[in-house]
Amino acid sequence: MRLTINKERFLAALANAYHAIAPKNPVAVLSNFKLDLTERGMEVTGSNNEITIRSTVPYILGDRTIITNVVRGSAMVDARMMTEIVRRMEGDTIFLDIVDNAVAKIEDGHSLFRINCASADEYPDIDLEPSGTELTIPCNVLADLVSQSAFAASGKEQRAILTALNLEAKDGVLTATATDSARLARKSVKIDSDVSFRTNIPARILADIVRLMEGALETRIFISDKKALFMFDGNVVSTRLIPGDYPVTRSIIPTVCNYKLQVNSQELLNAMGRIAVLSADKEYAVKLSMSEDHVEVSVKSDRHGSGNEPIKTFSYEGERLEVTFNSLFVIDAIKALKAEDVTICFQAEMRPFVVKDPKDDSAIELITPMHAY
Amino acid sequence: MRLTINKERFLAALANAYHAIAPKNPVAVLSNFKLDLTERGMEVTGSNNEITIRSTVPYILGDRTIITNVVRGSAMVDARMMTEIVRRMEGDTIFLDIVDNAVAKIEDGHSLFRINCASADEYPDIDLEPSGTELTIPCNVLADLVSQSAFAASGKEQRAILTALNLEAKDGVLTATATDSARLARKSVKIDSDVSFRTNIPARILADIVRLMEGALETRIFISDKKALFMFDGNVVSTRLIPGDYPVTRSIIPTVCNYKLQVNSQELLNAMGRIAVLSADKEYAVKLSMSEDHVEVSVKSDRHGSGNEPIKTFSYEGERLEVTFNSLFVIDAIKALKAEDVTICFQAEMRPFVVKDPKDDSAIELITPMHAY
Repeated sequence: MRLTINKERFLAALANAYHAIAPKNPVAVLSNFKLDLTERGMEVTGSNNEITIRSTVPYILGDRTIITNVVRGSAMVDARMMTEIVRRMEGDTIFLDIVDNAVAKIEDGHSLFRINCASADEYPDIDLEPSGTELTIPCNVLADLVSQSAFAASGKEQRAILTALNLEAKDGVLTATATDSARLARKSVKIDSDVSFRTNIPARILADIVRLMEGALETRIFISDKKALFMFDGNVVSTRLIPGDYPVTRSIIPTVCNYKLQVNSQELLNAMGRIAVLSADKEYAVKLSMSEDHVEVSVKSDRHGSGNEPIKTFSYEGERLEVTFNSLFVIDAIKALKAEDVTICFQAEMRPFVVKDPKDDSAIELITPMHAY
Repeated sequence: MRLTINKERFLAALANAYHAIAPKNPVAVLSNFKLDLTERGMEVTGSNNEITIRSTVPYILGDRTIITNVVRGSAMVDARMMTEIVRRMEGDTIFLDIVDNAVAKIEDGHSLFRINCASADEYPDIDLEPSGTELTIPCNVLADLVSQSAFAASGKEQRAILTALNLEAKDGVLTATATDSARLARKSVKIDSDVSFRTNIPARILADIVRLMEGALETRIFISDKKALFMFDGNVVSTRLIPGDYPVTRSIIPTVCNYKLQVNSQELLNAMGRIAVLSADKEYAVKLSMSEDHVEVSVKSDRHGSGNEPIKTFSYEGERLEVTFNSLFVIDAIKALKAEDVTICFQAEMRPFVVKDPKDDSAIELITPMHAY
């Protein structure tokens, strides 16, 4: 394999694929990239046990030639060294030559590196072929879907299915659901397709994939029973799925709203941020006290003291009510909604309550209260 | 104690004193601030076992009244809570009332916090009185002195004296020396004073103190045999000293220069930064090869491969020479000098060499080579 390649484009592909490299992967071979110079261009593949990213630099982009001086072939090189050396080189063009499947010669007309490499045959065979149900969706729509739901997934591996974001396509709507059993977040978006599927993708990984899409307009998604595959802007990203049945959650979202509070998002965030200074040792428990003429957030800790935060501008419908909850959950929910005001709907003191944008029903954030202290 | 105080000024004093709070101090009482409302103003004192900071908010600053509504007194409050609550409050003015030495009531006209506090009598008695030899010096001069020397101090506690910055005033010159035994950095500045002293201040702490001085014009320094004290802009900072005799280092700085290389600082930094990608597993060893018509930095690792970086613009006087060294030491030295070009003076392949600014002899960075690989 030999080629001359535009440095900036090559570095972008290396940096993309590097997102799949785990710093201390027990499978030593996965600290490498697989490089393939094929008829499509220079393909850089990185993988760990959960995600595989293949980023391709084409020969020609618009009217610019990106790759010249080509002898096709493949090789396996250390991912960190390759990325760091190319990143730090100062020339606009990189010359790469794989000699005897043993040494990768990297030059920019000034610096010269020879790094040890190996045959691409030693790299595991990873399935990156599109298969299953296909859907095309704008990247910013997928980003909203994930950012308003994935945060509520569990970070603990004890019950693996709860670390997933559940994605369900049906009747022209794509719905994402995440829950760690103390809270649940759900977001729905319309899709221009009548495909139907249900799948469970690791929430943390899907959030990473969405970050990789920054700058891309749309992505093709392929859902099979083995993997989810995303294709956008010269990148192919494959992620494992989480096996098992996702809990049935539709029935637990309340439809009644016996007590309804509407407040400015930023005012409530600021008040709870201050209160949280005193509640860190009590699982961030705060109490929200509401009546038609007064709403306040408060905390009381035997160890540290107490705090009271009256809310200045609000509207409240219902009897007097006091609800205690983990303020971090409500802070997460409000931030995810990105709305100027939020509506909080309560059924009763100890029943799950809903935080949502008063102008948009597509996202629902459900939170279970804590016992009052 | 009771007062109404400008929020911004109060927060600045709390944030300054908070630099002395250690997150998990085994002496529980030192997680607190001591607050004293005296004839000088509101004094906030924070301390750990190494450094004490007292930051004072005056009653009047220029023509602005900062503190009003005063009942003098003292109290001890949790440093983190006090700082975080005041930081997050939104009013311009804070009202603070210590009730029965038990509760600190903090209000800004909207939020109300009552945090548990205790009598100031429980706070340890810390000596912040100026004593010993006095010197006044511009803060930016002290900052240069420390930034060009302190980095070479040892980070390891095995030989405590090497964690110090040695400060010596004599004949109108203040000299700072740091060494971890593999390298040494020395910087001298002129002072308008004929004081004479020698002291060993923990290098890491002195670097912290210099950062606290940002924005201050000059500082008074008091050196006694128990402590070093710095007074600037309403702050008093006291640090412990490191006991013991500092090694005699004057004789080890070479005066001969058998081989002399001058190069652009940034070019050498970039070349060594790339080379370091391959040398991380060999204590960052790189080889500098010099002759009158060619200078290059190189690395050779059996495990990873090799790299060569010719230096484009240089002047070299002397026979051919190859020297191997820890590239991180040379990178630190070049960055500390902040000069466009650097001169490197060698005596012989295995003798310590000097890195300095060709236009300024006040800073000397001495580095011991490694055995060639």
